Amino acid sequence: MSPSSLLRKTLLLSAFAASAAAQTPSPLAESYRGDADRLIERALQDSAAYARLGLLVDTFGNRLSGSANLEAAIDWILGQMKSDGLENVRGEPVMVPHWVRGAESAELVRPRRAALPVLGLGGSIGTPKKGITAPVLVVSSFDELTQRAGEAKGKIVLFDEPFSARSSWPFENYGETVQYRVFGAVAAAKAGAVACLIRSVTPNSIRSPHTGVMIYDSTVTRIPAAALTVEDAMMLHRMQGRGEPVELTLKMDARTLPDAPSRNVVAEIVGREKPDEVVVLGGHLDSWDVGQGAMDDGGGAVAAWEAVRLMKELGLRPRRSVRVVLWTNEENGGRGSRGYRDAHRGELDRHVLGMESDNGVFTPMGFHLTGSDSAIAIARQVAGLLQSINAS
Amino acid sequence: MSPSSLLRKTLLLSAFAASAAAQTPSPLAESYRGDADRLIERALQDSAAYARLGLLVDTFGNRLSGSANLEAAIDWILGQMKSDGLENVRGEPVMVPHWVRGAESAELVRPRRAALPVLGLGGSIGTPKKGITAPVLVVSSFDELTQRAGEAKGKIVLFDEPFSARSSWPFENYGETVQYRVFGAVAAAKAGAVACLIRSVTPNSIRSPHTGVMIYDSTVTRIPAAALTVEDAMMLHRMQGRGEPVELTLKMDARTLPDAPSRNVVAEIVGREKPDEVVVLGGHLDSWDVGQGAMDDGGGAVAAWEAVRLMKELGLRPRRSVRVVLWTNEENGGRGSRGYRDAHRGELDRHVLGMESDNGVFTPMGFHLTGSDSAIAIARQVAGLLQSINAS
Repeated sequence: MSPSSLLRKTLLLSAFAASAAAQTPSPLAESYRGDADRLIERALQDSAAYARLGLLVDTFGNRLSGSANLEAAIDWILGQMKSDGLENVRGEPVMVPHWVRGAESAELVRPRRAALPVLGLGGSIGTPKKGITAPVLVVSSFDELTQRAGEAKGKIVLFDEPFSARSSWPFENYGETVQYRVFGAVAAAKAGAVACLIRSVTPNSIRSPHTGVMIYDSTVTRIPAAALTVEDAMMLHRMQGRGEPVELTLKMDARTLPDAPSRNVVAEIVGREKPDEVVVLGGHLDSWDVGQGAMDDGGGAVAAWEAVRLMKELGLRPRRSVRVVLWTNEENGGRGSRGYRDAHRGELDRHVLGMESDNGVFTPMGFHLTGSDSAIAIARQVAGLLQSINAS
Repeated sequence: MSPSSLLRKTLLLSAFAASAAAQTPSPLAESYRGDADRLIERALQDSAAYARLGLLVDTFGNRLSGSANLEAAIDWILGQMKSDGLENVRGEPVMVPHWVRGAESAELVRPRRAALPVLGLGGSIGTPKKGITAPVLVVSSFDELTQRAGEAKGKIVLFDEPFSARSSWPFENYGETVQYRVFGAVAAAKAGAVACLIRSVTPNSIRSPHTGVMIYDSTVTRIPAAALTVEDAMMLHRMQGRGEPVELTLKMDARTLPDAPSRNVVAEIVGREKPDEVVVLGGHLDSWDVGQGAMDDGGGAVAAWEAVRLMKELGLRPRRSVRVVLWTNEENGGRGSRGYRDAHRGELDRHVLGMESDNGVFTPMGFHLTGSDSAIAIARQVAGLLQSINAS
């Protein structure tokens, strides 16, 4: 991510408009042009948001729910927001899942010995201490597993489903592939497998495993689940195709501890005319425990925060209250958003717009909007104010 | 790499023509069209080369000079070439460097503790067993190190030089960045550093370190050298920029053992008219000890081998001898090519063309040729025979 793309993302959020295709601004939208242009100009003056994101991720590292890192980052952000002069700054308590990865390894045992990079899937149980050593059955799909269910008993099932990007927008058909990560362990266990492996759900690999959440079904035996790299999944598939015996040892110390306390970070600029009506700008603070959580979703969180900070700095007090909500526990549980919903049930109908950036911090091009026809019509007009940064 | 791109690469090599811009085939070139088309047609019939490459890299894994993997792969290839019916199949002895990576790790100690992915550079010495713990000085270039030489003493110098691809062809300005990998340790040691780190020389990173060869200077103290990921090099640079103390511990067991015996693999189809004149098709068999060496350069080696195998299968006996040479020790020493030169001094002037693929096995577009004007003119005409696979 470049500083300029984060700046533009900040601008995009600070204009709090949404559009599929921008139209000429209406007189109403036009009346905001002066403020919008000031926000745009100010945001482009420096790399404040990029520097803040760098400081956040460099200082605290990754921020898995339940970790000390996440809570330390939240403490720091609350302090910074107060220094920024934001209003009603607080951490709203939420209990979150506390999954811990522990040490993990995968070793190919047959047809030759080789260490394979591996990442356990979030929420998985661990293996016994000596690991699970078993023959591998590679399948391309749930359908193939069904057809070969008789072969799966006592084996490690590997789902080698390619990430078949149908467009340059890689999330287009993410769901088709990600179902193997989420539901693979249940399907494999039903067929009698002792562990589940998946091909990492990603179009880009440098023999780099990629993790994410998986879930169990209370009616099916829990088995450990982990991701191999794209390259190694293809290799095991080729080996099986040649009729070679494929066997590996999977070791995982993963375990789930009791739920831990965390917080949604909330701060506002109280509206001047309708302070009880709320526009929410959001991003999530938690991240997986590998990497730094800069793209997912430190950048989205900082962009939302920076948008409101700039409004404050420029003395722009909007008609409605603008509220930054930096959620906890998006990645593995969604407890942050549900906690917010439960804590704010009384004012949910006074939330007029919610915006979030959680698809990586690239050069913004526009946004998706779910809402009434009239809301979409207004958003299209307002989006015209973003033409100067090509994000309309 | 796709099977089809490897097939086309095979075709490209099997036509043994070279061109910057193809011309209409001359009558001479046109007289080969029938044979060229047969080779193209046969190669596109199946995925034999891709399957063979898969079998090679899956069975033997990576193949660093001096390793048992490399020699086992060579034994297997010699046997396969004999089964293919190639002529004069032999391994020509070469002594090669025997560098061993051993265990290695980098841990950020300040401003916070974090394990950093790291790969030692090929040829580097190791550290003492307890590692080297020292403050880090991050510089962007040799020039900056010169300017700040007074600060380097006793420190670990990190060269954070971005891979500044100026074109879509990433090797365009590879040399500008790779000089830090090759010569960084000498420059850092001259300034009094105790170890040298570089930002991995790559335009693509998923927090994935990338290795390659480095060299020492006999007049300068040898210090250990390793590559951090692009992401971590940028992080340490940001930390330094904020005035934070940056300190890390580098541990490397790397060492160089006595030279080991290896072999260049050589096989031929003896020419029907001028058997003493030689066209060489080459690729290298050795690879770094991380990854599988499929792209670099298993694919290039298999393409050259497959080209000659197809000629044999189709009963095409060329006027001159066509010789496949699969070099050992390209990556860290170049002993394979020098060994070939020394063993074949007597016939070097009867080598009329040498072809090699070592830039990764992608869809071939054409090739680079160094030679006399008349050779280039002929190659341009012959290359017209490759128009059907768009590689002319």
